[in-house]
Amino acid sequence: MARLPNYVQIKEVAPRDGLQNEKKFISTADKVAWINMLSETGVSEIEYSSFVNPKWIPALKDAKEVGKQIKRNPDVMYSALVPNMKGLEFALEAGIDGANVFMSASESHNKKNINKSIADTYPVLDEVINEAKQEGKRVTGYVSTVFDCPYEGKIDPEDVIRVCEKLFASGVDDISLGDTIGSAVPTQVEQLLSPLLSRYPSEKLILHFHDTRGMAIANIMTSMHYGIHRFDSSVGGLGGCPYAPGAAGNVATNDVLYLLDGLGIETGMNEKRIQEASLFIQKKLGKLLPSRSLAYFANAQ
Amino acid sequence: MARLPNYVQIKEVAPRDGLQNEKKFISTADKVAWINMLSETGVSEIEYSSFVNPKWIPALKDAKEVGKQIKRNPDVMYSALVPNMKGLEFALEAGIDGANVFMSASESHNKKNINKSIADTYPVLDEVINEAKQEGKRVTGYVSTVFDCPYEGKIDPEDVIRVCEKLFASGVDDISLGDTIGSAVPTQVEQLLSPLLSRYPSEKLILHFHDTRGMAIANIMTSMHYGIHRFDSSVGGLGGCPYAPGAAGNVATNDVLYLLDGLGIETGMNEKRIQEASLFIQKKLGKLLPSRSLAYFANAQ
Repeated sequence: MARLPNYVQIKEVAPRDGLQNEKKFISTADKVAWINMLSETGVSEIEYSSFVNPKWIPALKDAKEVGKQIKRNPDVMYSALVPNMKGLEFALEAGIDGANVFMSASESHNKKNINKSIADTYPVLDEVINEAKQEGKRVTGYVSTVFDCPYEGKIDPEDVIRVCEKLFASGVDDISLGDTIGSAVPTQVEQLLSPLLSRYPSEKLILHFHDTRGMAIANIMTSMHYGIHRFDSSVGGLGGCPYAPGAAGNVATNDVLYLLDGLGIETGMNEKRIQEASLFIQKKLGKLLPSRSLAYFANAQ
Repeated sequence: MARLPNYVQIKEVAPRDGLQNEKKFISTADKVAWINMLSETGVSEIEYSSFVNPKWIPALKDAKEVGKQIKRNPDVMYSALVPNMKGLEFALEAGIDGANVFMSASESHNKKNINKSIADTYPVLDEVINEAKQEGKRVTGYVSTVFDCPYEGKIDPEDVIRVCEKLFASGVDDISLGDTIGSAVPTQVEQLLSPLLSRYPSEKLILHFHDTRGMAIANIMTSMHYGIHRFDSSVGGLGGCPYAPGAAGNVATNDVLYLLDGLGIETGMNEKRIQEASLFIQKKLGKLLPSRSLAYFANAQ
């Protein structure tokens, strides 16, 4: 088997991708307490909220207050999702180290999600990327539906490459490749990473898996065998659809850490603190989160 | 990456390993109806029950009735767990194509589970293996705790090899290697399979993963890269401990099939029928089963 990386960097996305679809509103005070817990887990980056119009994501309508109230750990990067100049303005006011812009590799998903064609999305992102870079912020480009689209089915790796080329040309520092509907299997990961890694160094690429069909950990293994060492994950596996009982969301930070610890790969993270931060938000949400390792940990207590 | 097999053979273990720890008793009629559904999924083998003393596994106390009442599909092997000569006698009466004997690679786990040392277990199994072979039955040896033991921690691959050598010498046709506590990560799978596959052909080895920490699908990928093409799995991921809410059990047949279908590996199985058989037993048990793919399927209905 191909070698594995010595070190893997995790971005904790639960406060944004994890919470954004939850029906139950988590109070600002609870969000702040929880993000402060996450800040002490050894994680290198936390995506703490989204500055999308609160009309679309009411769960995160307090992004500005959250940004202002969290205690900043100097060892942690704090980033947020930013859709446009208005969002960037609020994000800069609330305080960010990184701005995360987003679009889809699939034309239909991009239209449904952003209400624009891919071609019409670039100028909007260009403006945000330029301004954020001028403000000295790191900019990550999220590319959704890089494997499969709920409307178009299989996505051609060439379509993903085209979007990545354009985003890198616009000045993003790195790109997070999203398995938005959690449908990929390891051979799809290989087929996408092979051409991408012949173009870009591995540190420019982050893999963002959802565990909807239970494939995420296997996909992370395959990504690492290809040299990827940056992943997005969510404590407890938070991020399932509120209308889908039992359905899994983002890959769980807990499960990723169990894997990496077992493989002897450094993360700098404290597994117990991740479990505790998971139990905190699980209690606030009042439902069992999907992480397997969390369930095991909780039952062993 | 190493090649993947063209064909993978699944043994469905939910009626035995899946049900054995459930507190709720499933009626004989429901078990029979369910196993009959499983018989029509294209699966090649079903472990339909256990002939262990009903005092120890009350959930399966009707093993004999189940064996007598199920409708046998000539394309399916029907096997059962058999601890000793008494169990074999009942199993032969109920009807089996295969007898599955069991022991642990860990001395402590063997003592806790079988109440005998490893050395004292061999003669008991030898007698069962001999008799079952004389009756023309296929005999599989289950070896538990091949990676980690809940009492002893990491298990040395040499200990597993020693048990396998002895069981093959006693006449078992194949061996199912059990990650009993669902703790293994892919490097452990590599460390065990490497020496085993230099001794035995891959068709003699079956991998039996539990998904307790969400590692099972990744471990199956690694096993296949090493040439393994036989796996045990359980519809819905049935098999969790009844006292551990949300905890995962055996790897879910549903999730394994999603993986294999996505990889283009033949199984001869019908995914929809597996989902339906999962929903049937989920309803009878009155709780959500842990399979990710099942939750996705159920929500998409």
